[in-house]
Amino acid sequence: MAVELKDLTKRSENYSQWYNELVVKADLAEQSAVRGCMVIKPYGYAIWEKMQRQLDDMFKETGHVNAYFPLLIPKSFLSREAEHVEGFAKECAVVTHYRLKNDPNGGGVVVDPAAKLEEELIIRPTSETIIWNTYKNWINSYRDLPILCNQWANVFRWEMRTRLFLRTAEFLWQEGHTAHATREEAEEEAVKMLNVYAEFAEKYMAVPVVKGVKSANERFAGALNTYTIEAMMQDGKALQSGTSHFLGQNFAKAFDVQFVNKENKLEYVWATSWGVSTRLMGALIMTHSDDNGLVLPPHLAPIQVVIVPIYKNAEMLAKIDEKVAGIVAKLKSMGISVKYDNADNKRPGFKFADYEVKGVPVRLVMGGRDLENNTMEIMRRDTLEKETRSCEGIEEYVKDLLEDIQANVYKKALDYRNSRITSVDSYEEFKEKIEEGGFILAHWDGTTETEEKIKEETKATIRCIPFDSFVPGDKEPGKCMVTGKPSACRVIFARSY
Amino acid sequence: MAVELKDLTKRSENYSQWYNELVVKADLAEQSAVRGCMVIKPYGYAIWEKMQRQLDDMFKETGHVNAYFPLLIPKSFLSREAEHVEGFAKECAVVTHYRLKNDPNGGGVVVDPAAKLEEELIIRPTSETIIWNTYKNWINSYRDLPILCNQWANVFRWEMRTRLFLRTAEFLWQEGHTAHATREEAEEEAVKMLNVYAEFAEKYMAVPVVKGVKSANERFAGALNTYTIEAMMQDGKALQSGTSHFLGQNFAKAFDVQFVNKENKLEYVWATSWGVSTRLMGALIMTHSDDNGLVLPPHLAPIQVVIVPIYKNAEMLAKIDEKVAGIVAKLKSMGISVKYDNADNKRPGFKFADYEVKGVPVRLVMGGRDLENNTMEIMRRDTLEKETRSCEGIEEYVKDLLEDIQANVYKKALDYRNSRITSVDSYEEFKEKIEEGGFILAHWDGTTETEEKIKEETKATIRCIPFDSFVPGDKEPGKCMVTGKPSACRVIFARSY
Repeated sequence: MAVELKDLTKRSENYSQWYNELVVKADLAEQSAVRGCMVIKPYGYAIWEKMQRQLDDMFKETGHVNAYFPLLIPKSFLSREAEHVEGFAKECAVVTHYRLKNDPNGGGVVVDPAAKLEEELIIRPTSETIIWNTYKNWINSYRDLPILCNQWANVFRWEMRTRLFLRTAEFLWQEGHTAHATREEAEEEAVKMLNVYAEFAEKYMAVPVVKGVKSANERFAGALNTYTIEAMMQDGKALQSGTSHFLGQNFAKAFDVQFVNKENKLEYVWATSWGVSTRLMGALIMTHSDDNGLVLPPHLAPIQVVIVPIYKNAEMLAKIDEKVAGIVAKLKSMGISVKYDNADNKRPGFKFADYEVKGVPVRLVMGGRDLENNTMEIMRRDTLEKETRSCEGIEEYVKDLLEDIQANVYKKALDYRNSRITSVDSYEEFKEKIEEGGFILAHWDGTTETEEKIKEETKATIRCIPFDSFVPGDKEPGKCMVTGKPSACRVIFARSY
Repeated sequence: MAVELKDLTKRSENYSQWYNELVVKADLAEQSAVRGCMVIKPYGYAIWEKMQRQLDDMFKETGHVNAYFPLLIPKSFLSREAEHVEGFAKECAVVTHYRLKNDPNGGGVVVDPAAKLEEELIIRPTSETIIWNTYKNWINSYRDLPILCNQWANVFRWEMRTRLFLRTAEFLWQEGHTAHATREEAEEEAVKMLNVYAEFAEKYMAVPVVKGVKSANERFAGALNTYTIEAMMQDGKALQSGTSHFLGQNFAKAFDVQFVNKENKLEYVWATSWGVSTRLMGALIMTHSDDNGLVLPPHLAPIQVVIVPIYKNAEMLAKIDEKVAGIVAKLKSMGISVKYDNADNKRPGFKFADYEVKGVPVRLVMGGRDLENNTMEIMRRDTLEKETRSCEGIEEYVKDLLEDIQANVYKKALDYRNSRITSVDSYEEFKEKIEEGGFILAHWDGTTETEEKIKEETKATIRCIPFDSFVPGDKEPGKCMVTGKPSACRVIFARSY
């Protein structure tokens, strides 16, 4: 189907609709025939693959290895950790039968009632339970620790309201699950992996993030502490982009995983888990893109440079082809991903619009006059600025330009984010400001009760208690804006995805 | 848990048990708590990752892109293609509910009967149906063709008798699904991908394969033709290692996927699908390994070279560490994966046995005398031959040695395979020979009836009608060994995994 590029809703008109349209128009993903499940299209998947590759390298550099654990989890495993089952039971896809048979009334197949499972199996919403049941057999002594495993997998949570990438019933993710001999080591690991996520978000996705710790209410079901990276979208809403959990000994106790420590005593193992998912695609899209379509940071763009010829006849095209071939070869040798699109079934104008909506960072065009003058027109996607330059040394120029774009989209996102972090002292002011969007730093008394009240009245949640300081004095004690009770420091509130 | 290396069953005693033990002892995989589902352990997964990376590169070089389609398939989709549903209905895992709730009788959770799905969902046993339902929206005109998609995914087939890697309920695989404007192009694609699989098996896995076409009886459910690569294990049994299917217009018709061709007429789209799975791990293990453990071809070994120091005291170890550091750096710079194991909690003898059972292709040892003489002991895993060499230029020697091992394990497997291909003319002789194992070339009348009779009486199946010739005259016509009816050429029979 021809992509209709012209009618993308403007962000200022309807941000949510702009996002939904953009995901489809940029060929990233689409709804499938199965409720809440998406099809990730080749162009979208190519971006995800670049994310995966980079994250995987970073996990391995920090000493982790990959493994694979079963998709299905016995129902009884979920119940072993009380908070865990409470958190996930309501969104479980349940396998009850293992066979179909021909419909005795004709037409199609039906579930075979004779093939009912003794114990139902759950499609993993996350894998702590099946993994800790496995670790039980891997761990006897402190010598077997630490275990630093990661898995790339699909998971399933039956969400009622879904949006492509942001919230889908099935999603792709990685989940790290580590086992340690001491509390300190596990806590360090959880923070280390949060830092890996933050580095990835900032250096590769060009998405600035706030690192911090979640309130008790927003913790992962079964964790003692959840660390998070929070990004701000262009509508001022927060997007939780990655979490890392210190699980204490909860899962070790639930699955009876003990080890003999150096003092020859039995002790429960300490645990962490940490994950990022295809939700990162949503963060990437919403942070940088504009009313013309996707804007991709060069470090994650499947096509970094596209070259389009404009020609009147085959002879002219042949000359452009020849000229461009050398440039393509040079760019490739520099590790730059380049596409030369000389397909003759689409007009240049269509190609321009298509690559623009797909967010290709740099576009080079060569026409008749360029051929004569040995020049090309260069357009950078982030600012849409054009210039014409000599082909001499254009490859080095493009390489530098890609780094410049990467830095620029990050800076733009960072400036925007920082301009929308404010501090308030009264609940009245909070209610006003929250309507404008952005992150609000305010004092809170630390109780779930107050947190719930604020959420109910304003739809804002505590995104995190940030590690870093964002406005002067935010790390100093004060009084809760709602109850007036003491507060140790300001926390970040926002409406969120 | 300490690995117990000593008591690996000998292949000659019990080949099947040798395999089962080896998979566990080499830390490749283990059974999980879920019937028929395996845990792929980090060392096993590292081999699979190397396979994936190489295959993925080969798919991309041949113009394919990756995408991702939903895990769950509406039950009704399966029924659309009659043979397809017939082939898979009996092994489907069925999702019937989407929520658990607290057990009103206390303790744990139960399926919430109020959360019953209107239409049951099947965990994909393969994805033709959901993908062709998606392609319907992607294809209007010949300009939208070909579509050359692949996906890396988990699939589920409820197998009754399972074995690690060889046959598991859940397994990992890739499935290519392509759409074409003409029959010829689709047929070419199916053969092209079979050739990619064969090249991968031979160059990387060092596993010789017979390429051929399956008999009608052994075709994929819904295919017009199934191409296969068949490998021979050390017990003379065949292992189907990869298949590629020409699907004709079956799925296009089932999902009503038509396109406007160049003559402006509506036509159904032509299809292929092709896949290899974690079953390849079984082929890799069984082809090369010996009574001492795993033997890995260097091209797929996660650790290509291990270096072990033998030392009497910390001072001596420090000297060896220093000496080895330079060699490790040089090997790494040459793209060789090397591990220096100077851990002091395990004795050299234990390390030797561990790396031997794990199939590390080259082991280097430096002890006190080596330190004095500037030498190292080199052992190659494939032949277990040792020699002592000067450290001067040892890196280049190791690099060449790895290639030599790769070539040697392939040649060994090829010689073995070729020595066990025989030709028989009578059914009596066939019944005798089949007991000895190996591939038997015999004439067959082309009917499913005869094929089934042979299978029932001898447990042998037609592995394929090979493309190439293996014994003189095998491509000439003859008479079926069972019925005496005419046969166009000899086909390969074997017992199989």
